Amino acid sequence: MTISPSPEFFRRLAAAAAAETLPRFRDGGRVMNKRASGFDPVTEADRATEQAIRDLIAREFPDHGIVGEEYGNSSTDSRFQWAIDPIDGTRSFISGIPLWGTLVGLLVDGTAVAGMMAQPFTRELFYADGNGARYEGPDGNRPLSVRKVTDLSEATLCTTSPFLFDEERLPRYQRVEQAVRLARYGTDCYAYCMLASGNIDLVIESGLNAYDIVALIPIVRQAGGIITTWSGDRPEKGGDIIAAVTPELHAQALELLNR
Amino acid sequence: MTISPSPEFFRRLAAAAAAETLPRFRDGGRVMNKRASGFDPVTEADRATEQAIRDLIAREFPDHGIVGEEYGNSSTDSRFQWAIDPIDGTRSFISGIPLWGTLVGLLVDGTAVAGMMAQPFTRELFYADGNGARYEGPDGNRPLSVRKVTDLSEATLCTTSPFLFDEERLPRYQRVEQAVRLARYGTDCYAYCMLASGNIDLVIESGLNAYDIVALIPIVRQAGGIITTWSGDRPEKGGDIIAAVTPELHAQALELLNR
Repeated sequence: MTISPSPEFFRRLAAAAAAETLPRFRDGGRVMNKRASGFDPVTEADRATEQAIRDLIAREFPDHGIVGEEYGNSSTDSRFQWAIDPIDGTRSFISGIPLWGTLVGLLVDGTAVAGMMAQPFTRELFYADGNGARYEGPDGNRPLSVRKVTDLSEATLCTTSPFLFDEERLPRYQRVEQAVRLARYGTDCYAYCMLASGNIDLVIESGLNAYDIVALIPIVRQAGGIITTWSGDRPEKGGDIIAAVTPELHAQALELLNR
Repeated sequence: MTISPSPEFFRRLAAAAAAETLPRFRDGGRVMNKRASGFDPVTEADRATEQAIRDLIAREFPDHGIVGEEYGNSSTDSRFQWAIDPIDGTRSFISGIPLWGTLVGLLVDGTAVAGMMAQPFTRELFYADGNGARYEGPDGNRPLSVRKVTDLSEATLCTTSPFLFDEERLPRYQRVEQAVRLARYGTDCYAYCMLASGNIDLVIESGLNAYDIVALIPIVRQAGGIITTWSGDRPEKGGDIIAAVTPELHAQALELLNR
């Protein structure tokens, strides 16, 4: 029995997603105008993309379960469950900024073992198939590997927005932000892939759904990084998430988050 | 006498810049490591890129003046002055995020008349040559045109970071942010190009240098937008800058900034 999807299957998922998302990206204001008239093309893109991915998974792995942002849980008793976020980073998507991505991840007995993030405008695919994490894009095709930053004072931190943290969590996040060398906003799923590819060192977010993070867990782990909740627990259910390139950096950030 | 650079000249500038920037982008942690050892490859990329652009301008327009971020003012008495920011968006550049750009603009008697923003990783070129603003990229080649949003409650706002505003300016900026539909961070020069291409509606920034903005002024204006200081004055010297897609939106934002 096949435990993990092949790179070729990830490429097919990415191509199917791109066919639905790209024609609706940068549509010159029609997104906003249609939304004002009660018609929401982001939801339309989300739904069409998730359906295309569900169809491919159902054909390849008919016994597996699927959890998606738009169509909920196609529940089965399978040990294998897929998690789909058709467009992670909706605010980037509707602003023309190519930092959104299509996320597809696979859980086996509740553990994330494989996943992909596809950004079709930049023609980038980040994936982990159980045999390591890899990158395919316009600047090459290579293994993903984190860099070995071990001190917060040397680290680059990314988060989607400082205003996504609630009142209780904001000061905890800010203690870490004040300790790092550089903080950058507006990154969504792209941040985890920049961590896995050795460009940044830390991602801290809050209020994530399972389908926001399942696909990214294997990419971070198989590139050599660490990903948990803010309490150090398993990240598969989402919530408050921290990803770091080394155990040292992870421990320092956790200490500040929970001081 | 040629008043404006041709699209072909912008393409040559973009290619020369890409040859210096792209090989140094996403270099897998070497940027940070080298900086720690006293060697700064971002400065190196900045300098090499600016020199390549200066050489092309000097060959094509030998009598013109040039102002750059790295090499200062090659002063002449010419009515024609070029402004160069070799890598606008350094924080994106060192984080692997393709929202930085190379900016080259032309002032005639102090007015910005032509300019370009080139993003080589996404293979995008936004330019204005005096005959209109245009886009060349992987998703096509077309005129740039703003969308016609006239009310703040319908607008998408971009800024680089809310923490780049000082104590006096932050509450002024926040009044506008609270009035818009959507605010997005981390965009640098890319935001002005998303405004010119009909994807967002408002950019508000503070503390800009002339070379940060001269290239972007003609792109915004020739796409149909408005760009001034927060006082409504000419933007060519930088400082506090606001760009908007319509006079109505510009007036509403200015009223909140200066209330």
